[in-house]
Amino acid sequence: MAKIFISLEGPDGAGKSTVAAQLQKKLQEQSTQPVLLTREPGGSKISEQIRQVILDVANQEMDARTEALLYAASRRQHAVEVVAPALAKEQIVLSDRYLDSSIAYQGAGREIGIAAVRQLNLFAVEEILPSLTLYLDLPPALGLKRIQEQRSQAPDRLEQEQLAFHERVYQAYNQLVAEEPQRFVRIDATQELPQVVAACWQAIAQRFFTATSND
Amino acid sequence: MAKIFISLEGPDGAGKSTVAAQLQKKLQEQSTQPVLLTREPGGSKISEQIRQVILDVANQEMDARTEALLYAASRRQHAVEVVAPALAKEQIVLSDRYLDSSIAYQGAGREIGIAAVRQLNLFAVEEILPSLTLYLDLPPALGLKRIQEQRSQAPDRLEQEQLAFHERVYQAYNQLVAEEPQRFVRIDATQELPQVVAACWQAIAQRFFTATSND
Repeated sequence: MAKIFISLEGPDGAGKSTVAAQLQKKLQEQSTQPVLLTREPGGSKISEQIRQVILDVANQEMDARTEALLYAASRRQHAVEVVAPALAKEQIVLSDRYLDSSIAYQGAGREIGIAAVRQLNLFAVEEILPSLTLYLDLPPALGLKRIQEQRSQAPDRLEQEQLAFHERVYQAYNQLVAEEPQRFVRIDATQELPQVVAACWQAIAQRFFTATSND
Repeated sequence: MAKIFISLEGPDGAGKSTVAAQLQKKLQEQSTQPVLLTREPGGSKISEQIRQVILDVANQEMDARTEALLYAASRRQHAVEVVAPALAKEQIVLSDRYLDSSIAYQGAGREIGIAAVRQLNLFAVEEILPSLTLYLDLPPALGLKRIQEQRSQAPDRLEQEQLAFHERVYQAYNQLVAEEPQRFVRIDATQELPQVVAACWQAIAQRFFTATSND
């Protein structure tokens, strides 16, 4: 059986966490293989320590390249401690965000450059790459509106960024999808959540399971 | 006046800290420009937080690439918060270790590869590069012996590494010196400390000051 490693990408507000939980459930019904739903830091103590540095609102003087290097470091540790061991045990891995998030947010959002941040993240993950990436496509203005409606606590440092930032991220995701049509499946995330889940599931079933289980 | 940014490299036990302090004093006597002696994390709060993660002896599961990414992140923040502002104010900067340490220790010592770690660190420092690097050349066995004699507290995680590691680091430094003879000056660090300082000073004076002040 081929290794199944799926990543979920897209902006905050697109419903990724809820979709991920429902996809995990469906995968577990479909497959005898255990299904690991993870997101960075994903239970890695070192990744958690690194992310505390990144997300600390007191670290206002953090340079964009420092941030990109820290995300890559956290990702590396999550990949080798969590993702790779699960795949080696023939578990299905579903990751809520992975390297494309850094390419979009640090490369384009922070304007470091897509090529440089991709290279950095390929140094980090090496061959530990998803074969299917579900991109939850949601226009930035709509994503921000949803976040502001849902949220009760104060936004963290990254969430304080402005609309122009999220527009750059959106354009970058579009570019990544265009560059790797064999890995990405674009999902219309302006739909109601059950439709988003159904579209994601259809993509997974078509890629990894037989046509008859495609519902 | 050209920017003066000097880095000191070589193994622990070569006397770098003592040499650096004495060179700072000599530079300050020689020049009207303020002289900044620094080493990572160098007073950057973020670099300090990152190094605490790297050097934590509890983090035994840290992957070599994670470590390399964290060193690059710490270096980036030190470069933009400490080194670049000092150079912009026409201060002389003397850094005890800089990017060559990562290339030698992570690239060769940890066997990630010199080219990959160099690329990572050039992403981190961009144009903030030393124009003169003094390499304190000391055979690994002698360096380790000196450290063990000097030290009273327990070795940290990196210092627990074995002689084979330090042999790889030594070979890498030799390669770096051979590749960039215009930037590196090799200093025989088996000499007594006053002779090491004198040789370093001679290299600095020849590069940056008039021949008559070369003593």
